[in-house]
Amino acid sequence: MPGFESRVPDGDNRERLICADCGHVDYQNPKVIVGTVVTSGDAILMCRRAIEPRRGFWTLPAGYLELGETLQEGAAREAMEEANADIAIDAILGVFSVTRIGQVQVIFSGRFADPTRPRFAAGPESLEVALFPWDRIPWDEIAFPTVRWALHAWHERGPGPPGHPAGNPASDPRGMHRMDPTREMEAAP
Amino acid sequence: MPGFESRVPDGDNRERLICADCGHVDYQNPKVIVGTVVTSGDAILMCRRAIEPRRGFWTLPAGYLELGETLQEGAAREAMEEANADIAIDAILGVFSVTRIGQVQVIFSGRFADPTRPRFAAGPESLEVALFPWDRIPWDEIAFPTVRWALHAWHERGPGPPGHPAGNPASDPRGMHRMDPTREMEAAP
Repeated sequence: MPGFESRVPDGDNRERLICADCGHVDYQNPKVIVGTVVTSGDAILMCRRAIEPRRGFWTLPAGYLELGETLQEGAAREAMEEANADIAIDAILGVFSVTRIGQVQVIFSGRFADPTRPRFAAGPESLEVALFPWDRIPWDEIAFPTVRWALHAWHERGPGPPGHPAGNPASDPRGMHRMDPTREMEAAP
Repeated sequence: MPGFESRVPDGDNRERLICADCGHVDYQNPKVIVGTVVTSGDAILMCRRAIEPRRGFWTLPAGYLELGETLQEGAAREAMEEANADIAIDAILGVFSVTRIGQVQVIFSGRFADPTRPRFAAGPESLEVALFPWDRIPWDEIAFPTVRWALHAWHERGPGPPGHPAGNPASDPRGMHRMDPTREMEAAP
């Protein structure tokens, strides 16, 4: 970044980006992604991305948590922004670390606020939005590994009460791999 | 911040801090705190804070997650930095939203890496470090509400397998309250 230099601020123990002019420290910390596996009956709400990265691939409604909102509020907002879906959040399905790109992802299970009328439509960041039964999920066109991890966490959990959230799979404990259908298929139970 | 102005960047939908000189967008997102309820037998490792805020009050070893580390790695690093404790992380105990100060807290349960020799000592950010049995925890000198929430989550969970993580208590669903022993005592089960 122009004007920024990397050095250790007073009282800190690692290098940060500091504005050479005003001394502002641009602390770069991991960011939080919140999203939801929204289900209607046995079908899952998915969005085909209208933006890069991974334009044209399928994802869950998810995005950056903003200041001033809870994790649950952020996840519900993303479902509204990306899929025009009014949802109710149930429980945490997975908590993932994606160290390659500095993200923590908290993925919930949820349902339509009015389950009798599951309404949705593509928001500006989606090309299309659809409900997929498990065996029709476009597994070859999934946008990110964590989407696959969250879907499998939902499938394995079953209809019982919420259990311990899934974490990173053994095949990628630090969240370092890009989307690789071969690897992911092997890792999936 | 000097030199920064607040406006909506292209393609965004909310105001951000943008450097008037170079256009750098200082995205302010919630930060992730990672920490651990480290136990040895029935006693819990706690640190008395040497720094503000809440200097002199007791907390769990916890701090900001850094880029490049998993949640578990960050929690273990904090235990080493604040308590010189080499720990093993077990499971997620609680996932809390503290919207008042833009934090997400992920608190784990853990134990000493060598359970037969629970060694610890105050790091630079701690005045002292101690193991407290449940009924000797200094409840009137707890630093933050989330410390209390995490301790109760640990106590309620009991010795069984990890269950669903605790979230914010009903008395503070959005994490808006400062430490208030009266309120917290009422909220505690």
